[in-house]
Amino acid sequence: MNRNNERAVNGPRLWASLMEMAEIGATPAGGSNRQALTEEDRAGRVLFSRWARDAGCEVHADAIGNLFATRPGADPEALPILIGSHLDTQPTGGRFDGVYGVLAGLEIVRTLNDLSLTTRSPIIVASWTNEEGARFAPAMMGSGVWAGEFPLEETYQTTDRSGQTVRDALMAIDALGTAPAAPFPLKGALEIHIEQGPILEAAGNTIGIVTGVQGIRWYDLILTGAPCHAGPTPMEHRRDPVQRLPSLLPDLYALAVDNAPWGRVTVGQLVSEPGSRNTVPERIRMSLDVRHPDQAVLDSMDKRLQEIVSGSDGDGIDVVLEEVWHSPAIRFDGRVLDAIRMAVEATGLPVMEMVSGAGHDSVYVSRVAPAAMIFIPCRDGLSHNESEYAAPEDISAGGDVLLNAVLALDAG
Amino acid sequence: MNRNNERAVNGPRLWASLMEMAEIGATPAGGSNRQALTEEDRAGRVLFSRWARDAGCEVHADAIGNLFATRPGADPEALPILIGSHLDTQPTGGRFDGVYGVLAGLEIVRTLNDLSLTTRSPIIVASWTNEEGARFAPAMMGSGVWAGEFPLEETYQTTDRSGQTVRDALMAIDALGTAPAAPFPLKGALEIHIEQGPILEAAGNTIGIVTGVQGIRWYDLILTGAPCHAGPTPMEHRRDPVQRLPSLLPDLYALAVDNAPWGRVTVGQLVSEPGSRNTVPERIRMSLDVRHPDQAVLDSMDKRLQEIVSGSDGDGIDVVLEEVWHSPAIRFDGRVLDAIRMAVEATGLPVMEMVSGAGHDSVYVSRVAPAAMIFIPCRDGLSHNESEYAAPEDISAGGDVLLNAVLALDAG
Repeated sequence: MNRNNERAVNGPRLWASLMEMAEIGATPAGGSNRQALTEEDRAGRVLFSRWARDAGCEVHADAIGNLFATRPGADPEALPILIGSHLDTQPTGGRFDGVYGVLAGLEIVRTLNDLSLTTRSPIIVASWTNEEGARFAPAMMGSGVWAGEFPLEETYQTTDRSGQTVRDALMAIDALGTAPAAPFPLKGALEIHIEQGPILEAAGNTIGIVTGVQGIRWYDLILTGAPCHAGPTPMEHRRDPVQRLPSLLPDLYALAVDNAPWGRVTVGQLVSEPGSRNTVPERIRMSLDVRHPDQAVLDSMDKRLQEIVSGSDGDGIDVVLEEVWHSPAIRFDGRVLDAIRMAVEATGLPVMEMVSGAGHDSVYVSRVAPAAMIFIPCRDGLSHNESEYAAPEDISAGGDVLLNAVLALDAG
Repeated sequence: MNRNNERAVNGPRLWASLMEMAEIGATPAGGSNRQALTEEDRAGRVLFSRWARDAGCEVHADAIGNLFATRPGADPEALPILIGSHLDTQPTGGRFDGVYGVLAGLEIVRTLNDLSLTTRSPIIVASWTNEEGARFAPAMMGSGVWAGEFPLEETYQTTDRSGQTVRDALMAIDALGTAPAAPFPLKGALEIHIEQGPILEAAGNTIGIVTGVQGIRWYDLILTGAPCHAGPTPMEHRRDPVQRLPSLLPDLYALAVDNAPWGRVTVGQLVSEPGSRNTVPERIRMSLDVRHPDQAVLDSMDKRLQEIVSGSDGDGIDVVLEEVWHSPAIRFDGRVLDAIRMAVEATGLPVMEMVSGAGHDSVYVSRVAPAAMIFIPCRDGLSHNESEYAAPEDISAGGDVLLNAVLALDAG
C-alpha cells in the first residue's frame, strides 16, 4: 500500500485486529454489541490493553474510564500526539464505528515499532468511554468529561434503565482509573473514522479530510389542536394538527434545501396523541434535528425556524417550539489539518475535504487541544447497523494516511 | 314540556335516574367508568332491573348478557316495539352516552304507567352488552351477537388484557342469561342518543332524526423508505417517508372535502419508526378512517384512495394500503323514521335530519328489524369524555319525541 515511498501500515494486521475485536459481543448478523461498561466492554478493554502493552505501551485509565496507551517519544519537551476514538458500540452496532479509530492508532504504534522509528512526541492511543451513549446518556461521555464539558460527579450518578450508576458500572468492570479525568497538553489529536454517510463512496474518494463538525440544534415541535370523534365531527369543525403538516413540513425541509449542500433537517420522531384510530388527534409531537457546519448559517436557520413556527395558519392549531440541545459547529485545527493534507498528498489517494454530520469524541477534544479527523468510506453509508462495512483496502489506506499525518505533525 | 298537547315524559324523573345511574363508577371529573362486565356494570344492571321491575316489567337476560325489560301490550298479535341502547361506558366516559337511550326507554314505561296507557305492542327496553368495546373487542358486541353478526362461541372466548374471557366475565357478574342471543320479530326499534358531534348544537336544533349511519372503512397506510443518520446523509440521498406526507395528506383529506358535507377522513394514528431523534425514519405507520353515509360514495372514495396510494412520487418511498375493517353504510327504516317525524312535528321542536357518524347498537339491530335513531345535542360535541354533557331540557324534549314516536309506531 506504499504508493509514493511514504510510510505504510500493515493493513492485514490492522484488519485482523478489527476482526478479532469484533468477536467480543459478536451478533448473529455480523455486527457487534459491545455497549459501554458491560462485560463485553471489559473484554474489549482487556484485549486492547494487552495488545498495547505487547507493543511496548504504558496503559492507564482515568477517573471516567478513558484508556490511554502511551508510546514514549524521544524529546522530553515535546507534547504528545493523541490518536483516539472508542471501543463501545450500539446494541446492534457494526465492527468499524469507533473501533477503527482506536485500532488504527494501535497499528501506528506497531508500525513505528516495525520501522524502529522513535517519534519526538510521545504517541498516545486513546479509547474514550461510552461514545455511543446507548446505555448511559449522554453520548461522547468520556471525552466530554475529560474536556470539562460534563461534571464528573454528576456523570457518575447517571443511571441506565436498570438503575445502575456509571460509577458502579465502571467499578463492576474494573474500568475506574486513578488518573484525573482532565485535559493534558497535546501537540495534536487525530481521529480516523468511517464516514457513516454516503458522500465519499458516491464521489469515489478514499479519504475525507474532515475540516469540522456540523453544528446541531435539537428541538421538539408540538402541534396542539382539539380531539374529537372521527365520525360525527364535520371536516370544517376540526382543529386537526395532522392537517397542519402539509403546510409546515415543506417550510422545515426548505431550511436544509435553502442551505445546501451542508444544511440538514430531520424529523426523526413523529407521533400523534392520543393515537386512537377513530379520534382526530389532539396533538402531534415531533423532533427536529437541524444541522449546518457554519455556525452563522445554523443560527440563521434557527432564526428562520422561529419565524416559521410563530406564523399562524388561522386553523386553530397551537404550535410550540422547544429547544432541547445545541452543539455548536466545530472548525478543526488548521495545523493538524495541514498535516493530514500533506499525508494524503504523499499517498496520491483520491481525497475530498468535508465536514462531519455526526458528533465524535473529537468534538470535545477539539475544545481543549488542536484536533482534526480523517474519514474513509463505508458501504452504502450504513452505520449503527450490523451490516456496517468498510473495505480492507480503505481500512489500510486510511491507516497509511493516519501514520503519515502523525509523522508530519511530529516533524512540524 | 308538553308543547302541543302531545304526551310528555317526566323530565325531572328521567334526569334524576340518569344522575343516579352515573353514581355507579362515578369519576372525580364528573364522568362515569362503568366498563362492560365489571362490578360497576353489574351494579348498573341490578339498578336498571330493579327500576324496570318496579315499573311492572318482566326482566330477563340472554346468552350474551343483553337485558330485556318487557311491558306487556294489549294485542297478543302485535309485535313488540324495542327501545334500547347500552349502560356500559368508556373508561373515562360520560353520564349520557348509551345510558340516556336505556333510561329514556324506562321513562317511556313509567310515563305510560302514569297515564294508565296500554299500548297494543309490548314495549321492550333493551340494554345491549358491551357497546363501547373498551374492555372486550369488538364494540357493539351484544347487539352484534343478537343480530347474528358475531358467532356466540367465538365471542365467549374473547379475552380482556388480563386474559379473562367474555364468558367468565359474564358469569362473574351473574349476567349470563338463558334466553338465546338471537333476534326475535319486532314492529320497530328506536334508539335515542346524544349526537356525540357538534352539528345539532351549531344549528340550534334540539332533535336530529337519524336517517342512517355512515359507512366506515378503516385502513392502515405504511410508508417505507430507508433509515439513515440525520447528520452525514445529504438531503438528496434520503428516502424519507416523512417528506412524502406533504404531498400525500392533502390527497387523503380531499377525499372528504370533495364529498362534503358528509365525507370524513381522519388520520388518528401517525407514528415514525424507529423514532430516533437523529435517524431519518425508515417507516411511517398511519391509520386512516374514511366515512360516508352513502355506500356508493364510500366505495368511490375507496377507489380513489387506491389510485392515490398506487401513484409514485419517484421518491423511493414504498406505500402500502391495508384494509382493516369495513362497516357498510346503513339506511334506517322508513316507517320508523316516519313515526319519529310525526312525533317531532307534533312537538314543534327545532329539528333536522342527519346521519350518524358513529356506530351504534342500532347498526346491528337494523340488519334484522326495522330501526331508526333520534339524536339530541351534547355540549361542544364532546363525548367519550368525562365532560360530556346534555342539557336537562334537551334530555326531556328527546324523551317526549321518543314517547310520541313509540305511540305513533304503536298506532301505525
